[in-house]
Amino acid sequence: MLATLDPPLGLLVGEELSRHGVTVATGVAVETVGRRGQRLSITGSAGFRAETDLVLVATGVRPEAGLAAAAGIETGKWGALRVNRAMETNVPHVYAAGDCAETYHRLLERCVYLPLGSTAHKQGRVAGENAAGGEVTFSGTLGTQAVQVFDLVAARTGLRDAEAREAGFDPLTVEVEAWDHKVYYPGAHTLHVRITGDRGTGRLLGAQIVGHRAAEVSKRVDVFAAALFNRMAVAGLSDVDLSYTPPLSSPWDAVQMAAQGWVTEQSRTVPVPNEVID
Amino acid sequence: MLATLDPPLGLLVGEELSRHGVTVATGVAVETVGRRGQRLSITGSAGFRAETDLVLVATGVRPEAGLAAAAGIETGKWGALRVNRAMETNVPHVYAAGDCAETYHRLLERCVYLPLGSTAHKQGRVAGENAAGGEVTFSGTLGTQAVQVFDLVAARTGLRDAEAREAGFDPLTVEVEAWDHKVYYPGAHTLHVRITGDRGTGRLLGAQIVGHRAAEVSKRVDVFAAALFNRMAVAGLSDVDLSYTPPLSSPWDAVQMAAQGWVTEQSRTVPVPNEVID
Repeated sequence: MLATLDPPLGLLVGEELSRHGVTVATGVAVETVGRRGQRLSITGSAGFRAETDLVLVATGVRPEAGLAAAAGIETGKWGALRVNRAMETNVPHVYAAGDCAETYHRLLERCVYLPLGSTAHKQGRVAGENAAGGEVTFSGTLGTQAVQVFDLVAARTGLRDAEAREAGFDPLTVEVEAWDHKVYYPGAHTLHVRITGDRGTGRLLGAQIVGHRAAEVSKRVDVFAAALFNRMAVAGLSDVDLSYTPPLSSPWDAVQMAAQGWVTEQSRTVPVPNEVID
Repeated sequence: MLATLDPPLGLLVGEELSRHGVTVATGVAVETVGRRGQRLSITGSAGFRAETDLVLVATGVRPEAGLAAAAGIETGKWGALRVNRAMETNVPHVYAAGDCAETYHRLLERCVYLPLGSTAHKQGRVAGENAAGGEVTFSGTLGTQAVQVFDLVAARTGLRDAEAREAGFDPLTVEVEAWDHKVYYPGAHTLHVRITGDRGTGRLLGAQIVGHRAAEVSKRVDVFAAALFNRMAVAGLSDVDLSYTPPLSSPWDAVQMAAQGWVTEQSRTVPVPNEVID
Protein backbone atom coordinates (compact mmCIF):
# COMPACT_ATOMS: atom_id res chain seq x y z
CA MET A 1 0.00 0.00 0.00
CA LEU A 2 1.07 3.54 -0.73
CA ALA A 3 4.13 2.76 -2.82
CA THR A 4 5.38 6.31 -2.32
CA LEU A 5 6.51 5.16 1.15
CA ASP A 6 9.01 2.44 2.08
CA PRO A 7 7.38 -1.01 2.55
CA PRO A 8 7.56 -1.09 6.41
CA LEU A 9 5.54 2.15 6.51
CA GLY A 10 3.21 1.11 3.69
CA LEU A 11 2.44 -2.00 5.76
CA LEU A 12 1.16 0.21 8.60
CA VAL A 13 -1.18 1.94 6.15
CA GLY A 14 -2.45 -1.46 4.93
CA GLU A 15 -3.10 -2.54 8.53
CA GLU A 16 -5.07 0.67 9.15
CA LEU A 17 -7.28 -0.09 6.12
CA SER A 18 -7.88 -3.69 7.30
CA ARG A 19 -8.69 -2.42 10.81
CA HIS A 20 -11.51 -0.37 9.24
CA GLY A 21 -12.94 -3.28 7.23
CA VAL A 22 -11.29 -2.53 3.88
CA THR A 23 -10.23 -5.58 1.87
CA VAL A 24 -6.90 -4.80 0.23
CA ALA A 25 -5.97 -6.54 -3.03
CA THR A 26 -2.52 -5.73 -4.39
CA GLY A 27 -0.82 -7.10 -7.50
CA VAL A 28 -4.17 -7.39 -9.31
CA ALA A 29 -4.81 -5.81 -12.72
CA VAL A 30 -8.48 -4.87 -13.16
CA GLU A 31 -9.73 -6.27 -16.49
CA THR A 32 -13.47 -5.53 -16.70
CA VAL A 33 -16.06 -3.38 -14.91
CA GLY A 34 -19.68 -4.24 -15.78
CA ARG A 35 -23.26 -3.78 -14.53
CA ARG A 36 -24.85 -6.56 -12.51
CA GLY A 37 -28.37 -5.41 -11.62
CA GLN A 38 -28.05 -2.33 -9.39
CA ARG A 39 -24.39 -3.06 -8.64
CA LEU A 40 -21.05 -3.11 -10.46
CA SER A 41 -19.12 -6.29 -11.12
CA ILE A 42 -15.32 -6.27 -11.48
CA THR A 43 -13.03 -8.96 -12.81
CA GLY A 44 -9.25 -8.93 -12.72
CA SER A 45 -6.08 -10.97 -13.07
CA ALA A 46 -5.47 -14.11 -10.99
CA GLY A 47 -9.22 -14.83 -10.83
CA PHE A 48 -10.10 -11.60 -9.01
CA ARG A 49 -13.90 -11.03 -8.69
CA ALA A 50 -15.76 -8.35 -6.75
CA GLU A 51 -19.16 -6.62 -6.60
CA THR A 52 -19.53 -3.05 -5.46
CA ASP A 53 -21.71 0.07 -5.58
CA LEU A 54 -18.96 2.41 -6.71
CA VAL A 55 -15.74 2.14 -8.68
CA LEU A 56 -13.24 4.94 -8.16
CA VAL A 57 -10.53 4.96 -10.82
CA ALA A 58 -7.26 6.42 -9.48
CA THR A 59 -4.60 5.65 -12.04
CA GLY A 60 -2.34 8.68 -11.85
CA VAL A 61 -2.00 11.87 -13.82
CA ARG A 62 -0.76 12.43 -17.36
CA PRO A 63 -0.01 15.93 -18.70
CA GLU A 64 -2.26 17.36 -21.43
CA ALA A 65 0.29 19.28 -23.48
CA GLY A 66 -1.25 18.97 -26.94
CA LEU A 67 -2.11 22.64 -27.46
CA ALA A 68 1.28 23.85 -26.30
CA ALA A 69 3.15 21.19 -28.31
CA ALA A 70 1.23 22.26 -31.45
CA ALA A 71 2.50 25.78 -30.79
CA GLY A 72 6.09 24.56 -30.85
CA ILE A 73 6.70 24.17 -27.13
CA GLU A 74 9.06 21.34 -26.19
CA THR A 75 7.93 18.44 -24.04
CA GLY A 76 10.18 16.09 -22.08
CA LYS A 77 10.22 12.35 -21.45
CA TRP A 78 7.02 12.42 -19.36
CA GLY A 79 5.14 14.36 -22.05
CA ALA A 80 5.06 17.48 -19.87
CA LEU A 81 6.17 20.94 -20.97
CA ARG A 82 9.84 21.65 -20.43
CA VAL A 83 10.52 24.83 -18.46
CA ASN A 84 13.51 26.56 -16.94
CA ARG A 85 13.57 27.78 -13.32
CA ALA A 86 11.84 30.99 -14.40
CA MET A 87 8.98 28.65 -15.55
CA GLU A 88 9.59 29.85 -19.11
CA THR A 89 9.23 27.39 -21.98
CA ASN A 90 11.56 27.24 -24.99
CA VAL A 91 9.30 29.84 -26.66
CA PRO A 92 10.29 33.24 -25.20
CA HIS A 93 7.61 34.99 -23.11
CA VAL A 94 5.54 31.80 -22.88
CA TYR A 95 5.40 30.38 -19.37
CA ALA A 96 3.95 27.13 -18.03
CA ALA A 97 3.05 25.95 -14.53
CA GLY A 98 1.08 23.17 -12.86
CA ASP A 99 0.23 19.62 -13.92
CA CYS A 100 1.10 20.25 -17.60
CA ALA A 101 4.71 21.20 -16.78
CA GLU A 102 7.85 19.58 -15.45
CA THR A 103 9.02 20.48 -11.92
CA TYR A 104 12.54 21.39 -10.83
CA HIS A 105 13.62 19.16 -7.92
CA ARG A 106 15.77 20.98 -5.38
CA LEU A 107 17.68 17.88 -4.22
CA LEU A 108 18.07 16.12 -7.59
CA GLU A 109 18.95 19.46 -9.23
CA ARG A 110 17.05 18.46 -12.38
CA CYS A 111 13.44 18.39 -13.55
CA VAL A 112 10.97 15.62 -12.69
CA TYR A 113 7.25 15.15 -13.30
CA LEU A 114 5.52 15.50 -9.93
CA PRO A 115 2.08 17.11 -10.35
CA LEU A 116 0.90 18.36 -6.94
CA GLY A 117 -1.38 21.25 -6.00
CA SER A 118 1.10 22.81 -3.59
CA THR A 119 3.77 22.81 -6.32
CA ALA A 120 1.36 24.22 -8.92
CA HIS A 121 0.66 27.22 -6.67
CA LYS A 122 4.37 27.95 -6.24
CA GLN A 123 5.09 27.53 -9.95
CA GLY A 124 2.09 29.68 -10.90
CA ARG A 125 3.30 32.56 -8.76
CA VAL A 126 6.75 32.41 -10.36
CA ALA A 127 5.33 32.13 -13.90
CA GLY A 128 2.86 34.95 -13.28
CA GLU A 129 5.42 37.30 -11.74
CA ASN A 130 7.90 36.69 -14.57
CA ALA A 131 5.21 37.04 -17.27
CA ALA A 132 4.44 40.44 -15.73
CA GLY A 133 8.06 41.55 -15.98
CA GLY A 134 9.51 40.18 -12.75
CA GLU A 135 12.66 38.14 -12.32
CA VAL A 136 12.05 35.32 -9.88
CA THR A 137 13.21 31.73 -9.75
CA PHE A 138 11.27 28.62 -8.73
CA SER A 139 13.02 27.20 -5.64
CA GLY A 140 12.05 23.66 -6.53
CA THR A 141 10.08 20.81 -5.08
CA LEU A 142 11.34 18.63 -2.25
CA GLY A 143 8.82 15.93 -3.11
CA THR A 144 6.83 16.61 0.06
CA GLN A 145 3.54 14.67 0.21
CA ALA A 146 0.97 13.86 2.90
CA VAL A 147 -2.18 11.75 3.06
CA GLN A 148 -4.65 10.90 5.81
CA VAL A 149 -5.93 7.28 5.87
CA PHE A 150 -8.65 6.83 8.53
CA ASP A 151 -6.83 7.63 11.81
CA LEU A 152 -3.32 7.57 10.34
CA VAL A 153 -1.32 10.22 8.55
CA ALA A 154 1.49 9.20 6.22
CA ALA A 155 3.85 11.90 4.98
CA ARG A 156 7.24 12.20 3.36
CA THR A 157 9.70 14.75 2.05
CA GLY A 158 12.91 14.48 0.07
CA LEU A 159 14.45 11.31 -1.35
CA ARG A 160 14.04 7.69 -0.36
CA ASP A 161 16.99 5.32 -0.27
CA ALA A 162 16.77 4.05 -3.86
CA GLU A 163 16.07 7.53 -5.24
CA ALA A 164 19.07 8.92 -3.37
CA ARG A 165 21.34 6.11 -4.62
CA GLU A 166 20.20 6.69 -8.19
CA ALA A 167 21.01 10.39 -7.78
CA GLY A 168 24.61 9.58 -6.83
CA PHE A 169 24.39 9.81 -3.05
CA ASP A 170 25.58 7.06 -0.67
CA PRO A 171 22.35 6.80 1.33
CA LEU A 172 21.78 5.32 4.77
CA THR A 173 18.15 4.90 5.90
CA VAL A 174 17.29 4.33 9.56
CA GLU A 175 13.83 3.79 11.10
CA VAL A 176 13.13 4.96 14.64
CA GLU A 177 9.96 4.71 16.73
CA ALA A 178 9.38 7.65 19.04
CA TRP A 179 6.48 8.96 21.12
CA ASP A 180 4.82 12.11 19.78
CA HIS A 181 4.74 13.50 23.35
CA LYS A 182 5.68 12.59 26.91
CA VAL A 183 4.10 9.22 27.60
CA TYR A 184 3.03 10.20 31.15
CA TYR A 185 0.61 12.66 29.57
CA PRO A 186 -2.54 10.91 28.22
CA GLY A 187 -2.97 10.24 24.52
CA ALA A 188 0.62 9.62 23.45
CA HIS A 189 1.05 7.91 20.07
CA THR A 190 4.01 6.19 18.46
CA LEU A 191 5.51 7.81 15.41
CA HIS A 192 7.35 5.67 12.87
CA VAL A 193 10.07 7.88 11.42
CA ARG A 194 12.43 6.85 8.61
CA ILE A 195 15.35 9.15 7.83
CA THR A 196 17.53 8.93 4.75
CA GLY A 197 20.88 10.74 4.82
CA ASP A 198 24.16 10.67 2.97
CA ARG A 199 26.50 8.33 4.83
CA GLY A 200 29.70 10.20 4.05
CA THR A 201 28.67 13.85 4.42
CA GLY A 202 25.86 13.35 6.95
CA ARG A 203 23.55 15.50 4.82
CA LEU A 204 19.81 15.00 5.32
CA LEU A 205 18.21 13.64 2.13
CA GLY A 206 14.68 12.69 3.15
CA ALA A 207 12.23 11.63 5.84
CA GLN A 208 9.02 9.62 6.04
CA ILE A 209 6.63 9.50 9.01
CA VAL A 210 3.54 7.41 9.70
CA GLY A 211 1.53 8.03 12.86
CA HIS A 212 -1.84 8.87 14.37
CA ARG A 213 -3.62 11.91 12.90
CA ALA A 214 -3.48 13.57 16.35
CA ALA A 215 0.32 13.27 16.39
CA GLU A 216 1.19 16.28 14.21
CA VAL A 217 2.76 14.01 11.58
CA SER A 218 2.54 16.33 8.59
CA LYS A 219 4.01 19.36 10.35
CA ARG A 220 6.86 17.21 11.68
CA VAL A 221 7.56 16.28 8.06
CA ASP A 222 7.51 20.02 7.35
CA VAL A 223 10.28 20.54 9.93
CA PHE A 224 12.29 18.02 7.90
CA ALA A 225 11.28 19.89 4.72
CA ALA A 226 12.56 23.20 6.14
CA ALA A 227 15.82 21.45 7.08
CA LEU A 228 16.13 19.93 3.58
CA PHE A 229 15.44 23.30 1.99
CA ASN A 230 18.43 24.67 3.91
CA ARG A 231 20.72 21.68 3.15
CA MET A 232 21.09 20.77 6.81
CA ALA A 233 22.93 17.72 8.10
CA VAL A 234 20.88 15.07 9.94
CA ALA A 235 22.93 15.80 13.08
CA GLY A 236 22.04 19.50 12.83
CA LEU A 237 18.37 18.76 13.54
CA SER A 238 19.26 18.22 17.20
CA ASP A 239 20.59 21.78 17.39
CA VAL A 240 17.27 23.38 16.40
CA ASP A 241 15.29 24.83 19.32
CA LEU A 242 11.97 23.05 18.69
CA SER A 243 9.00 23.62 20.96
CA TYR A 244 8.48 21.46 24.04
CA THR A 245 5.49 20.98 26.29
CA PRO A 246 4.54 17.52 27.67
CA PRO A 247 1.13 17.14 25.91
CA LEU A 248 2.67 17.91 22.50
CA SER A 249 6.30 16.84 22.40
CA SER A 250 9.41 15.84 24.34
CA PRO A 251 12.56 17.78 25.27
CA TRP A 252 14.07 16.03 22.25
CA ASP A 253 11.25 16.01 19.73
CA ALA A 254 10.53 12.79 17.80
CA VAL A 255 12.18 14.47 14.79
CA GLN A 256 15.38 14.83 16.83
CA MET A 257 15.22 11.37 18.40
CA ALA A 258 15.00 9.91 14.91
CA ALA A 259 17.92 12.09 13.78
CA GLN A 260 19.98 10.87 16.74
CA GLY A 261 19.13 7.26 15.81
CA TRP A 262 20.39 7.93 12.30
CA VAL A 263 23.64 9.51 13.55
CA THR A 264 24.27 6.55 15.88
CA GLU A 265 23.83 4.14 13.00
CA GLN A 266 26.02 6.26 10.73
CA SER A 267 28.81 6.29 13.33
CA ARG A 268 28.78 2.48 13.29
CA THR A 269 29.43 2.38 9.57
CA VAL A 270 31.74 5.35 9.01
CA PRO A 271 35.16 5.10 10.66
CA VAL A 272 35.78 8.04 12.99
CA PRO A 273 39.43 9.08 13.55
CA ASN A 274 40.64 8.43 17.09
CA GLU A 275 40.67 11.58 19.16
CA VAL A 276 43.40 12.40 21.62
CA ILE A 277 41.92 13.55 24.93
CA ASP A 278 44.20 16.01 26.68
CA MET B 1 -2.64 36.40 30.27
CA LEU B 2 0.54 34.71 29.15
CA ALA B 3 2.76 37.77 28.97
CA THR B 4 5.25 35.83 26.83
CA LEU B 5 2.85 36.45 23.92
CA ASP B 6 1.70 39.73 22.40
CA PRO B 7 -1.52 41.09 24.04
CA PRO B 8 -3.93 40.20 21.14
CA LEU B 9 -2.87 36.54 21.46
CA GLY B 10 -2.80 36.60 25.27
CA LEU B 11 -6.42 37.82 25.09
CA LEU B 12 -7.40 34.63 23.24
CA VAL B 13 -5.84 32.56 26.02
CA GLY B 14 -7.77 34.59 28.63
CA GLU B 15 -11.02 33.97 26.72
CA GLU B 16 -10.29 30.23 26.63
CA LEU B 17 -9.86 30.24 30.42
CA SER B 18 -13.14 32.14 30.93
CA ARG B 19 -14.93 29.74 28.54
CA HIS B 20 -13.92 26.93 30.92
CA GLY B 21 -15.13 28.69 34.07
CA VAL B 22 -11.81 30.09 35.24
CA THR B 23 -11.97 33.56 36.85
CA VAL B 24 -8.93 35.52 35.73
CA ALA B 25 -7.54 38.28 38.00
CA THR B 26 -4.60 40.22 36.58
CA GLY B 27 -2.73 43.13 38.13
CA VAL B 28 -3.30 41.76 41.63
CA ALA B 29 -0.46 41.15 44.10
CA VAL B 30 -1.25 38.29 46.47
CA GLU B 31 -0.61 39.43 50.06
CA THR B 32 -1.72 36.61 52.36
CA VAL B 33 -2.68 32.94 52.12
CA GLY B 34 -4.32 31.53 55.28
CA ARG B 35 -6.43 28.62 56.50
CA ARG B 36 -10.19 29.09 56.75
CA GLY B 37 -11.63 25.81 58.03
CA GLN B 38 -10.96 23.14 55.39
CA ARG B 39 -10.21 25.77 52.73
CA LEU B 40 -7.58 28.39 51.94
CA SER B 41 -8.28 32.09 52.08
CA ILE B 42 -6.33 34.56 49.93
CA THR B 43 -6.13 38.32 50.18
CA GLY B 44 -4.44 40.63 47.72
CA SER B 45 -4.05 44.20 46.55
CA ALA B 46 -7.06 46.32 45.49
CA GLY B 47 -9.32 44.45 47.90
CA PHE B 48 -8.85 41.04 46.29
CA ARG B 49 -10.42 38.18 48.29
CA ALA B 50 -10.82 34.50 47.33
CA GLU B 51 -11.36 31.08 48.90
CA THR B 52 -10.00 27.92 47.35
CA ASP B 53 -8.94 24.30 47.97
CA LEU B 54 -5.51 24.64 46.41
CA VAL B 55 -2.95 27.40 45.89
CA LEU B 56 -0.37 26.78 43.19
CA VAL B 57 2.56 29.20 43.41
CA ALA B 58 4.12 29.81 40.00
CA THR B 59 6.47 32.75 40.38
CA GLY B 60 9.28 31.89 37.97
CA VAL B 61 12.69 30.31 38.34
CA ARG B 62 15.86 31.65 39.98
CA PRO B 63 19.22 29.93 39.52
CA GLU B 64 20.82 28.22 42.54
CA ALA B 65 24.49 28.97 41.88
CA GLY B 66 25.79 29.17 45.46
CA LEU B 67 28.05 26.10 45.40
CA ALA B 68 29.60 27.04 42.06
CA ALA B 69 30.05 30.68 43.06
CA ALA B 70 31.83 29.57 46.27
CA ALA B 71 34.21 27.60 44.02
CA GLY B 72 35.12 30.77 42.13
CA ILE B 73 32.80 30.41 39.16
CA GLU B 74 31.50 33.70 37.75
CA THR B 75 27.80 34.51 37.69
CA GLY B 76 26.12 37.13 35.51
CA LYS B 77 23.38 39.70 36.03
CA TRP B 78 20.65 37.08 36.51
CA GLY B 79 22.72 35.21 39.12
CA ALA B 80 23.25 32.29 36.73
CA LEU B 81 26.63 30.77 35.89
CA ARG B 82 28.41 32.41 32.98
CA VAL B 83 29.45 29.98 30.27
CA ASN B 84 30.94 30.21 26.80
CA ARG B 85 29.44 28.38 23.81
CA ALA B 86 31.35 25.25 24.81
CA MET B 87 29.32 25.46 28.08
CA GLU B 88 32.61 25.93 29.96
CA THR B 89 32.72 28.29 32.95
CA ASN B 90 35.60 30.66 33.70
CA VAL B 91 37.23 27.79 35.62
CA PRO B 92 38.90 25.56 33.01
CA HIS B 93 37.45 22.03 32.69
CA VAL B 94 34.37 22.99 34.71
CA TYR B 95 31.18 22.98 32.63
CA ALA B 96 27.64 24.08 33.46
CA ALA B 97 24.27 23.42 31.81
CA GLY B 98 20.59 23.75 32.60
CA ASP B 99 18.63 26.08 34.89
CA CYS B 100 21.76 27.18 36.82
CA ALA B 101 23.48 28.53 33.70
CA GLU B 102 23.04 31.32 31.18
CA THR B 103 21.90 30.45 27.66
CA TYR B 104 23.38 31.70 24.39
CA HIS B 105 20.62 33.21 22.22
CA ARG B 106 21.13 32.53 18.51
CA LEU B 107 19.33 35.68 17.32
CA LEU B 108 20.52 38.12 19.99
CA GLU B 109 24.07 36.69 19.72
CA ARG B 110 24.56 37.09 23.46
CA CYS B 111 23.63 35.19 26.63
CA VAL B 112 20.22 35.41 28.31
CA TYR B 113 18.63 33.58 31.24
CA LEU B 114 15.93 31.32 29.78
CA PRO B 115 15.65 28.11 31.81
CA LEU B 116 13.73 25.53 29.73
CA GLY B 117 13.91 21.73 29.70
CA SER B 118 14.51 21.49 25.96
CA THR B 119 17.44 23.92 26.26
CA ALA B 120 18.88 22.09 29.28
CA HIS B 121 19.01 18.85 27.26
CA LYS B 122 20.90 20.53 24.42
CA GLN B 123 23.30 22.30 26.77
CA GLY B 124 23.89 19.11 28.76
CA ARG B 125 24.89 17.20 25.66
CA VAL B 126 27.39 19.91 24.68
CA ALA B 127 28.80 20.18 28.23
CA GLY B 128 29.06 16.41 28.55
CA GLU B 129 30.72 15.89 25.19
CA ASN B 130 33.26 18.66 25.85
CA ALA B 131 33.94 17.45 29.41
CA ALA B 132 34.76 14.06 27.87
CA GLY B 133 37.27 15.59 25.45
CA GLY B 134 35.03 16.62 22.55
CA GLU B 135 34.91 19.98 20.82
CA VAL B 136 31.31 20.99 20.20
CA THR B 137 29.51 24.30 20.36
CA PHE B 138 26.03 25.07 21.68
CA SER B 139 23.98 26.36 18.75
CA GLY B 140 21.86 28.56 20.95
CA THR B 141 18.27 28.99 21.93
CA LEU B 142 15.68 30.60 19.67
CA GLY B 143 13.38 31.21 22.63
CA THR B 144 10.90 28.60 21.40
CA GLN B 145 8.08 27.91 23.88
CA ALA B 146 4.71 26.15 23.77
CA VAL B 147 1.86 25.65 26.21
CA GLN B 148 -1.55 23.97 26.02
CA VAL B 149 -4.45 25.78 27.75
CA PHE B 150 -7.64 23.66 27.66
CA ASP B 151 -8.38 23.33 23.92
CA LEU B 152 -5.90 25.99 22.79
CA VAL B 153 -2.19 25.81 22.10
CA ALA B 154 -0.08 28.96 22.30
CA ALA B 155 3.46 28.81 20.98
CA ARG B 156 6.22 31.16 19.93
CA THR B 157 9.77 31.21 18.63
CA GLY B 158 12.31 33.98 18.13
CA LEU B 159 11.91 37.63 19.05
CA ARG B 160 8.81 39.75 19.57
CA ASP B 161 8.60 43.31 18.31
CA ALA B 162 9.98 45.08 21.40
CA GLU B 163 12.72 42.47 21.90
CA ALA B 164 13.77 42.85 18.26
CA ARG B 165 13.82 46.65 18.50
CA GLU B 166 15.92 46.50 21.66
CA ALA B 167 18.36 44.21 19.84
CA GLY B 168 18.88 46.79 17.10
CA PHE B 169 16.54 45.45 14.42
CA ASP B 170 13.85 47.55 12.69
CA PRO B 171 10.96 45.16 13.35
CA LEU B 172 7.61 44.94 11.63
CA THR B 173 4.98 42.65 13.20
CA VAL B 174 1.91 41.51 11.26
CA GLU B 175 -0.97 39.31 12.45
CA VAL B 176 -2.78 37.05 10.00
CA GLU B 177 -5.69 34.69 10.55
CA ALA B 178 -5.57 31.54 8.44
CA TRP B 179 -7.37 28.19 8.40
CA ASP B 180 -5.31 25.23 9.56
CA HIS B 181 -6.71 23.18 6.65
CA LYS B 182 -9.11 23.48 3.70
CA VAL B 183 -12.37 24.74 5.12
CA TYR B 184 -14.47 22.40 2.94
CA TYR B 185 -13.03 19.51 4.95
CA PRO B 186 -14.72 19.16 8.38
CA GLY B 187 -13.01 20.39 11.52
CA ALA B 188 -11.10 23.40 10.21
CA HIS B 189 -9.85 25.83 12.87
CA THR B 190 -8.57 29.39 12.64
CA LEU B 191 -4.93 29.98 13.47
CA HIS B 192 -3.85 33.40 14.74
CA VAL B 193 -0.30 33.89 13.47
CA ARG B 194 1.89 36.90 14.31
CA ILE B 195 5.16 37.27 12.41
CA THR B 196 7.95 39.66 13.32
CA GLY B 197 10.57 40.40 10.67
CA ASP B 198 13.19 43.02 9.96
CA ARG B 199 11.60 45.69 7.77
CA GLY B 200 14.71 46.57 5.82
CA THR B 201 16.31 43.17 5.19
CA GLY B 202 13.13 41.07 5.27
CA ARG B 203 14.78 38.64 7.70
CA LEU B 204 12.45 36.50 9.83
CA LEU B 205 12.87 37.37 13.51
CA GLY B 206 10.04 35.55 15.26
CA ALA B 207 6.56 34.05 15.14
CA GLN B 208 3.71 33.44 17.57
CA ILE B 209 0.69 31.20 16.95
CA VAL B 210 -2.47 30.59 18.97
CA GLY B 211 -5.00 28.01 17.78
CA HIS B 212 -6.94 24.86 18.59
CA ARG B 213 -4.92 21.94 19.94
CA ALA B 214 -5.98 19.89 16.90
CA ALA B 215 -4.48 22.48 14.53
CA GLU B 216 -0.81 21.44 14.76
CA VAL B 217 0.14 24.79 16.29
CA SER B 218 3.39 23.78 17.97
CA LYS B 219 4.84 22.02 14.94
CA ARG B 220 3.94 25.01 12.77
CA VAL B 221 5.97 27.12 15.20
CA ASP B 222 8.74 24.56 14.73
CA VAL B 223 8.70 25.22 10.98
CA PHE B 224 9.32 28.88 11.87
CA ALA B 225 12.04 27.75 14.31
CA ALA B 226 13.80 25.76 11.57
CA ALA B 227 13.59 28.83 9.31
CA LEU B 228 14.98 31.09 12.06
CA PHE B 229 17.80 28.64 12.74
CA ASN B 230 18.79 28.99 9.08
CA ARG B 231 18.44 32.82 9.01
CA MET B 232 15.72 32.72 6.37
CA ALA B 233 13.83 35.73 5.08
CA VAL B 234 10.08 35.87 5.77
CA ALA B 235 9.48 35.77 2.00
CA GLY B 236 11.56 32.59 1.74
CA LEU B 237 8.98 30.62 3.75
CA SER B 238 6.74 30.58 0.66
CA ASP B 239 9.46 28.77 -1.28
CA VAL B 240 9.58 25.78 1.08
CA ASP B 241 7.76 22.69 -0.17
CA LEU B 242 5.52 22.07 2.86
CA SER B 243 3.10 19.15 2.93
CA TYR B 244 -0.44 19.56 1.62
CA THR B 245 -3.52 17.42 1.99
CA PRO B 246 -7.00 18.96 2.53
CA PRO B 247 -7.67 17.57 6.06
CA LEU B 248 -4.35 18.92 7.36
CA SER B 249 -3.30 22.01 5.43
CA SER B 250 -3.74 24.16 2.33
CA PRO B 251 -1.68 24.48 -0.86
CA TRP B 252 -0.20 27.52 0.85
CA ASP B 253 0.11 26.46 4.48
CA ALA B 254 -1.03 28.89 7.21
CA VAL B 255 2.68 29.51 7.90
CA GLN B 256 3.07 30.70 4.30
CA MET B 257 -0.17 32.70 4.20
CA ALA B 258 1.03 34.58 7.29
CA ALA B 259 4.43 35.11 5.67
CA GLN B 260 2.72 36.51 2.55
CA GLY B 261 0.66 38.85 4.74
CA TRP B 262 3.87 40.11 6.32
CA VAL B 263 5.54 40.66 2.93
CA THR B 264 2.50 42.58 1.64
CA GLU B 265 2.60 44.85 4.68
CA GLN B 266 6.36 45.31 4.36
CA SER B 267 6.00 46.32 0.70
CA ARG B 268 3.61 49.09 1.79
CA THR B 269 6.21 50.60 4.11
CA VAL B 270 9.47 50.03 2.22
CA PRO B 271 9.83 51.90 -1.08
CA VAL B 272 10.49 49.48 -3.97
CA PRO B 273 12.45 50.82 -6.96
CA ASN B 274 10.37 51.04 -10.14
CA GLU B 275 11.12 48.22 -12.52
CA VAL B 276 11.40 48.67 -16.25
CA ILE B 277 9.36 46.02 -18.06
CA ASP B 278 10.91 45.16 -21.40
